[in-house]
Amino acid sequence: MKVQMMHGAGGEVMGELLKVLSCVTHNNAGGIGLESLDDGAVIPIGGTNIVFTTDSHVVHPIFFPGGDIGRIAVSGTINDLAMMGGRPIALSCGLILEEGFDVGDLEQIMQSMNTALGEAGASLVTGDTKVVEKGALDGIAINTAGIGVAETVVRDNGLMPGDRIIVSGTLGDHGLAILTHREGFDLGDQIRSDVAPIWSLVKGAMAAGTIHAMKDPTRGGFAAAINEMARKAGVGVRLEEVAVPIRASVRSAGSLLGIDPLEVANEGKVVMGVPEEDAESILAAIRRHPLGKDAAIIGKVVEGSSVIMETSIGGERFIEPPMGDPVPRVC
Amino acid sequence: MKVQMMHGAGGEVMGELLKVLSCVTHNNAGGIGLESLDDGAVIPIGGTNIVFTTDSHVVHPIFFPGGDIGRIAVSGTINDLAMMGGRPIALSCGLILEEGFDVGDLEQIMQSMNTALGEAGASLVTGDTKVVEKGALDGIAINTAGIGVAETVVRDNGLMPGDRIIVSGTLGDHGLAILTHREGFDLGDQIRSDVAPIWSLVKGAMAAGTIHAMKDPTRGGFAAAINEMARKAGVGVRLEEVAVPIRASVRSAGSLLGIDPLEVANEGKVVMGVPEEDAESILAAIRRHPLGKDAAIIGKVVEGSSVIMETSIGGERFIEPPMGDPVPRVC
Repeated sequence: MKVQMMHGAGGEVMGELLKVLSCVTHNNAGGIGLESLDDGAVIPIGGTNIVFTTDSHVVHPIFFPGGDIGRIAVSGTINDLAMMGGRPIALSCGLILEEGFDVGDLEQIMQSMNTALGEAGASLVTGDTKVVEKGALDGIAINTAGIGVAETVVRDNGLMPGDRIIVSGTLGDHGLAILTHREGFDLGDQIRSDVAPIWSLVKGAMAAGTIHAMKDPTRGGFAAAINEMARKAGVGVRLEEVAVPIRASVRSAGSLLGIDPLEVANEGKVVMGVPEEDAESILAAIRRHPLGKDAAIIGKVVEGSSVIMETSIGGERFIEPPMGDPVPRVC
Repeated sequence: MKVQMMHGAGGEVMGELLKVLSCVTHNNAGGIGLESLDDGAVIPIGGTNIVFTTDSHVVHPIFFPGGDIGRIAVSGTINDLAMMGGRPIALSCGLILEEGFDVGDLEQIMQSMNTALGEAGASLVTGDTKVVEKGALDGIAINTAGIGVAETVVRDNGLMPGDRIIVSGTLGDHGLAILTHREGFDLGDQIRSDVAPIWSLVKGAMAAGTIHAMKDPTRGGFAAAINEMARKAGVGVRLEEVAVPIRASVRSAGSLLGIDPLEVANEGKVVMGVPEEDAESILAAIRRHPLGKDAAIIGKVVEGSSVIMETSIGGERFIEPPMGDPVPRVC
């Protein structure tokens, strides 16, 4: 068998590849390990819950409306830590550069990483740089790993019937920003990536109530995230289409390109399941955050096993787990 | 300026590139950070010294005599943790795969990672997989980051005049194994990579005496490591050529190819500076380890600033910091 693009697209097909990785039997250091396929691992060390996560970034193009590969590299890892309830502390950075890569571009990327680190209150403490010959890599790849500390660990598998589903803002912005930019559409600033570290938003939400489950809807978008959350918890979800925040420009671009905004990556959003009684206070806390103004309660958790959307015209449709993200090299 | 191969070769030229990275001002989380350019960072969390390090691996070819990219990916990070005095606990794995990569090869690589994890007593707890289109990467790149715990933190800058320099075994094996294999020399099993996790060797040495400084002589080899250690500590080093362990086969291949075995990467060795009074007991501890049978005391630290080798024919030569590792994509 050969690796295909869809093996890296965050959807159902990726499961095939993850089976290969299951030959790693040394996969847990006493807490939450590789086998759980959550956003990160948790390792109890000296009475502290250390959260540990990693992400490699190969987004193309490396500069796009709203961000660049450096901002994604920091935000992606910060957000994975945050999804486990982890306050981000330290990041590593493994750079792979193609011979001939422009050093000015690299400087801009590193400055962008530094800005995102500042926003998140984290530091880049260790790194490694490799250079490969021309043709052996398309420009640059950045891996970041991160360490955080969680007072309360939150999982992606804790949805319970009756929970309300909250999204922290509009969906589909990142994926459609990458795709429209790549296709050369002149949309001005209408569609920009949402890439941002959202630990402070998550922290505010955690202080405002109990969160049963969270996940950041990156590759495969909201559709992949909500289906994975429902499957892991053995529950169903009912969503109301009218409540789902999607920008008009993103919706239009999606229609034009035949791309469902619910199936493409977001890089600064969170999907949460929270108890009904805490939903309004958590929503209010998220909305007070500059990155959470468009947050909304978009549905609830039910007994069952399907994710169903009540459409704006009164019908129903299944939100299926996508085979993968339709946008290659989205992050 | 454009990135050149030498920018990633671990030597003097790499310093130019590291200057660019200095725009990262959020570079320390309260312990030892990026600015120290040591083998890893140290972050004090809840009274524990968490060691954190990262390495990306692009070795070519991915399978070679004595190991493969998976064994290097685990060993390299375990050894960087060990160089800081860190007991390895948990690793992350960021895979980037080229479309079309053979899944059987991937499985073999993952099994190799698992074996090395078992040897080191560590676990792979979190991961990420990206796939890029054909032509955007030469096969596979693996990043590993690692977390360890150090009861005693050891730095690479602590050499003191009078210290003895110990190497844990023969030098140059990895670099010359890669190069001769790549050049298609049929040397049978004569030159094999030394790639291995050496935490248990380092642990035994630490229990046998005080270690003032350690470093693993990877890219740029022993020559780069010893010069960096001397420069950071503001001392000189005098070495005895007759005491330096180099396999005859490695020496011959080096002569043939015009490559100095002291300037190429090792992947399972450590260079230490230890007080004279502890040198014999530490050497004995290292030699008791299966990977330390060829360990030797090869010189001593002196006042001054040069690394000088007393040659076997009674002369002297400077061991200069190499411009870089002469073997590209060595790890």
